[in-house]
Amino acid sequence: MPKVSADHLQARRRQILDGARSAFARHGYEGATVRVLEDEIGLSRGAIFHHFSDKEALFMALAIEDAESMLETVAEHGLVQVMREMVAAPDAGRLGTQLEIARRLRTDSAFRVAWAPRLNELWQAVRRRLERQRDAGTLRNDVDIDAVASYLELVMEGLVAHLAAAQPADRLDGVLDLVEQSVRER
Amino acid sequence: MPKVSADHLQARRRQILDGARSAFARHGYEGATVRVLEDEIGLSRGAIFHHFSDKEALFMALAIEDAESMLETVAEHGLVQVMREMVAAPDAGRLGTQLEIARRLRTDSAFRVAWAPRLNELWQAVRRRLERQRDAGTLRNDVDIDAVASYLELVMEGLVAHLAAAQPADRLDGVLDLVEQSVRER
Repeated sequence: MPKVSADHLQARRRQILDGARSAFARHGYEGATVRVLEDEIGLSRGAIFHHFSDKEALFMALAIEDAESMLETVAEHGLVQVMREMVAAPDAGRLGTQLEIARRLRTDSAFRVAWAPRLNELWQAVRRRLERQRDAGTLRNDVDIDAVASYLELVMEGLVAHLAAAQPADRLDGVLDLVEQSVRER
Repeated sequence: MPKVSADHLQARRRQILDGARSAFARHGYEGATVRVLEDEIGLSRGAIFHHFSDKEALFMALAIEDAESMLETVAEHGLVQVMREMVAAPDAGRLGTQLEIARRLRTDSAFRVAWAPRLNELWQAVRRRLERQRDAGTLRNDVDIDAVASYLELVMEGLVAHLAAAQPADRLDGVLDLVEQSVRER
């Protein structure tokens, strides 16, 4: 394929994914009808589904993209940074996708099996980051790494549920400070 | 009404509520069909809906009962104790009700308005308990009470989501130890 077409294809896929992300964030997976997707993306259903076979394929592409970018953020800055980004921009970011993943984990046992390797990758990334912090002497030394990782994941699950329920977000920065501080070496 | 009938009525309502609670916990609100309710309660639909007008009324009776018992537990032992009870018996207890409340808060703005006073009552109970702990010198003194209360509520939301997704629960006791310790005076 000539380079210019490949670039064009890439840009078009980006446009579709970004629009779909904000559609899922604002309307939820169920609420993001094909009509809503067209409006948010700015393309016709024909153009959208030329690139992705259906809404499910769009969602899975976003879910995988988010899982990968979360891995990068965790490796560099830790899971609390993922949470801070979610608090800073609940509508723009990963919230819609994370919420739908949480719903499927709860209700869809086939998805739970299919998604388990992604959860495990995230878990391992969180653990590796914590181990590096422990080696650097910044992580508290009196608690098991697995307990700290489970703790951070539980707070993350709470954050997704909290933001999704449109509960007040004004105290969340202070809460995340407390979380960060509670695992830090004193 | 003669005493014996009143006692009988009370016992019958108790039987219905207990059965409905376990139906919601095991099958979710949607999954708890009238047939499932009959099986779990051990009474016919006629008998059940003689006491509660419909499934919605049953659910609201349980939700209010849980809200009140949570207030009592919080006042006496704190919100972490509510979480410990949920971890100890996820299927038996408040999980089904709490999960449906969380879903409605997310998706039903009329419910969100109607339920706000209950959330506020719980919030106030958590704050009062924390103030008593601060007065007793057992709560850390360097963080705002509101931040600690928000933190505990966020962990609670995470716990409900986590248990509902049938994620591993074996590390949760350690996680709750960490949570308790993170707000304790050092």
